[in-house]
Amino acid sequence: MSDMGLVIVGAGGRMGQTLVRTVHSMPGARLAGAIERPGSPYVGRDAGELAGIGIVNVPITDDPLPAFAKADGVIDFTSPAASREFAGYAAQARIVHVIGTTGFSAEDDAAIAAAARHATIVKSGNMSLGVNLLAELVEQAARALGPDDFDIEILEMHHRHKVDAPSGTALMFGEAAAAGRDIKLPDNSVRVRDGYTGPRQAGSIGFATLRGGSVVGDHSVIFAGAGERLTLTHNSEDRSIFARGAVKAALWAHGRKPGLYSMHDVLGLS
Amino acid sequence: MSDMGLVIVGAGGRMGQTLVRTVHSMPGARLAGAIERPGSPYVGRDAGELAGIGIVNVPITDDPLPAFAKADGVIDFTSPAASREFAGYAAQARIVHVIGTTGFSAEDDAAIAAAARHATIVKSGNMSLGVNLLAELVEQAARALGPDDFDIEILEMHHRHKVDAPSGTALMFGEAAAAGRDIKLPDNSVRVRDGYTGPRQAGSIGFATLRGGSVVGDHSVIFAGAGERLTLTHNSEDRSIFARGAVKAALWAHGRKPGLYSMHDVLGLS
Amino acid sequence: MSDMGLVIVGAGGRMGQTLVRTVHSMPGARLAGAIERPGSPYVGRDAGELAGIGIVNVPITDDPLPAFAKADGVIDFTSPAASREFAGYAAQARIVHVIGTTGFSAEDDAAIAAAARHATIVKSGNMSLGVNLLAELVEQAARALGPDDFDIEILEMHHRHKVDAPSGTALMFGEAAAAGRDIKLPDNSVRVRDGYTGPRQAGSIGFATLRGGSVVGDHSVIFAGAGERLTLTHNSEDRSIFARGAVKAALWAHGRKPGLYSMHDVLGLS
Amino acid sequence: MSDMGLVIVGAGGRMGQTLVRTVHSMPGARLAGAIERPGSPYVGRDAGELAGIGIVNVPITDDPLPAFAKADGVIDFTSPAASREFAGYAAQARIVHVIGTTGFSAEDDAAIAAAARHATIVKSGNMSLGVNLLAELVEQAARALGPDDFDIEILEMHHRHKVDAPSGTALMFGEAAAAGRDIKLPDNSVRVRDGYTGPRQAGSIGFATLRGGSVVGDHSVIFAGAGERLTLTHNSEDRSIFARGAVKAALWAHGRKPGLYSMHDVLGLS
Repeated sequence: MSDMGLVIVGAGGRMGQTLVRTVHSMPGARLAGAIERPGSPYVGRDAGELAGIGIVNVPITDDPLPAFAKADGVIDFTSPAASREFAGYAAQARIVHVIGTTGFSAEDDAAIAAAARHATIVKSGNMSLGVNLLAELVEQAARALGPDDFDIEILEMHHRHKVDAPSGTALMFGEAAAAGRDIKLPDNSVRVRDGYTGPRQAGSIGFATLRGGSVVGDHSVIFAGAGERLTLTHNSEDRSIFARGAVKAALWAHGRKPGLYSMHDVLGLS
Repeated sequence: MSDMGLVIVGAGGRMGQTLVRTVHSMPGARLAGAIERPGSPYVGRDAGELAGIGIVNVPITDDPLPAFAKADGVIDFTSPAASREFAGYAAQARIVHVIGTTGFSAEDDAAIAAAARHATIVKSGNMSLGVNLLAELVEQAARALGPDDFDIEILEMHHRHKVDAPSGTALMFGEAAAAGRDIKLPDNSVRVRDGYTGPRQAGSIGFATLRGGSVVGDHSVIFAGAGERLTLTHNSEDRSIFARGAVKAALWAHGRKPGLYSMHDVLGLS
Repeated sequence: MSDMGLVIVGAGGRMGQTLVRTVHSMPGARLAGAIERPGSPYVGRDAGELAGIGIVNVPITDDPLPAFAKADGVIDFTSPAASREFAGYAAQARIVHVIGTTGFSAEDDAAIAAAARHATIVKSGNMSLGVNLLAELVEQAARALGPDDFDIEILEMHHRHKVDAPSGTALMFGEAAAAGRDIKLPDNSVRVRDGYTGPRQAGSIGFATLRGGSVVGDHSVIFAGAGERLTLTHNSEDRSIFARGAVKAALWAHGRKPGLYSMHDVLGLS
Repeated sequence: MSDMGLVIVGAGGRMGQTLVRTVHSMPGARLAGAIERPGSPYVGRDAGELAGIGIVNVPITDDPLPAFAKADGVIDFTSPAASREFAGYAAQARIVHVIGTTGFSAEDDAAIAAAARHATIVKSGNMSLGVNLLAELVEQAARALGPDDFDIEILEMHHRHKVDAPSGTALMFGEAAAAGRDIKLPDNSVRVRDGYTGPRQAGSIGFATLRGGSVVGDHSVIFAGAGERLTLTHNSEDRSIFARGAVKAALWAHGRKPGLYSMHDVLGLS
């Protein structure tokens, strides 16, 4: 099978440039097109040169349809409105559409599900292989290690510029733990400890947040029992892991029948 | 259901005493008997007093059959020959037999399997809930994160008195990783790095060993990819986790039909 | 030099028993006496038997003066009022007095300082060698790694029964970091993060708390800069480290001239 | 004081380009010149454009003397022969010379020491602030925590392409620990553990090596005692920390009297 031809939408942005570099560097994939919105100052520039890897002879255009028609797949970290439109084009072209965009409404989700009748769509709020796998392992561990014996704590550290806490990924791990325990996270989470707290309540899920330096993103889920502790940790060294995960997803989806898939499917966990 | 009555065999030894304390402290279990080999200086003493928890009115005897006849289960960290014999008695009494003994021959294993037609036997080389669960998670992660993308490294630390390396538990995690990758551990393990090593070989499983202080046992399995790392860690604070795991196994087995089970079954992973 | 003879005051309590066992096990020290308050049910019992190490022929008495007169030093984790009194007796006997008691008033401190004209007193709120050394290293690191470049975060984890947060030791590390930076901790600490926090403020010292299982006490002080991180961690496996540190302090003080010393002196850091 | 004007020598190489970007981004410093060896293809190009930060109007030249004459300092990660020559020019210009080059002969060292009569030279084999500080803390901890009580272990992890073990930085920490203990590292290091090892020998310094993924460089020095552990860890996220440390060193040296300094001086530790 020849290399999978991939179109990057939003190719002029920071994530788009990372995707261009990642597609360029990964075996089995090649850059087949690069799209920006009409009026973007990047239209007409070479996608590779803009991304700092030298000229690759793929000019950025503002016309997705001809690009999709010649490609095997699209990688898309743009906006809900744009992704919904691209899903429709991917369905017309009957190609793969990998969606890393977040913030969809229920209506957007329905439109994407409809497009998945003809497009092979992989959609996930976090495209890292490691994070998705860890969430699965957390759910299993939370199921096996019950609340009478093991306390669950979630720790995250991010760089000094992050403005909210806990991180979305920490909450995703919290949801996975709650799912394993068959409980609701909002009713069982402890997000602040200061001063007199009383003893820890069995079954609760605690969060703790560190901020500093240039840390890209570290997460640990701790299962603390009597005399033993299990800790499942993910360290991100580099934001490119989301781009790599998206390309992996595209390669996995290549040749599969249309449908709506997640990173769980890509990891072979479902 | 009333508390499960448990007999501790080898009740005068260090592990036996820990088991007596653990049974005494865990809800749902009660000490129903305590056995030592004929001639042991502990015969006739009160099992609780010997274990440092005060008199519990359970004298240590050297006659297992009457004790088994009145009990719901037996916990056994003794020797292969003794455990094989106890399995036969447990089969006669049609009760639970939790075996944490190691070093069985194929012949021993066959005798125990035969006993499991009438006894409900749980047998595992490591009775810690956390270690057994982690081994399962390691196997899954090794399967999902392939050798082209992720390197597997296993790190362990134990106290200064430990005389061999790597630990049996580290090798157990190595076997779990190899099983997930469908490879043989002995053909793929790297146990020493010093001086010029050349670049790391894809698909190999590396081991590293730390020794010092009074560390009971820490193990980490690291999956290191491009830009991200997954680390699964187990910390033992206390040797009593093996006793706790054994009592958990007994409680799980109580009322189940005869057969040969493992900690995987107890954890609900099979 | 023959072994240093040590008297344990409060020998019947939990910490007293740990001290008896520790003195008994450490080279260079021997148990020379064991004191309880008048009326204690432990008076008359053998200190070793009570502590679970067998008879050592040191009966617990309620009369400190004769015991002090025959001893080289006293180890004392009792109460402010008792410690103040014992300091007076140690001054009379011109011996070593190691004080791990906490909660002294200014008046108590003055009385102890007065006693230190004739007694060789080592007094510290935390007798662990490792914790005291770490506090010193934290202060130095905080001085060398300035607030424009490095963010300081302090993380602690304790067992599920702990009722307050952050731990006293975490605050002690915070004070050390603040001293290194020449700032006041209360004006610069961030003890809670939840929801929208805005970017991290340069120069602040953040705290995060984990609770679970049977963790004796883990502390990390993180210095996070652009592209690098320094983490100084202390793990307590066992409450006996405070007893060991106290005996170490006594051995260090043996033969030194009267005065008021701290664990900093014992560690050779001053 | 106006910004310190810095010349980058070897400005066309990978480290040179990182230095150009770093000088450009750090307050208090500005790029005053960029030098390559005669015949380099980079001569004549704009240093900023080559480094990917856009045109900065500093062309790369092959003539160091005029550039040094107009500058306040030079940053130099080149080769021993080149650095020795640059030290002579820096002495003539009476400016700062920061040397991150490694592999000097005794003769080179003598020449650089001679140049330091007129130049203000900061020279170190590792320009990371964090690594240098950690080495100092390791030495102190090794001194305070003696071999009868605490075992020293050094762990490092690097990416899969690294071809030797342990890392130079791990050995540097080993030397620091040995210095604190007043022992020789080669006589006391344990670099391999496999199979039957016997119990750990008191006073030895153990090394363990992990390799995998894209890890830039993690190092931990562990002091493991009875019941407690101290761990001093450094994580490098990014190779730019060496460039940042070099610029920090230059800023520190600006205005100081001629002499040969190290990162210890820059950190205020000497």
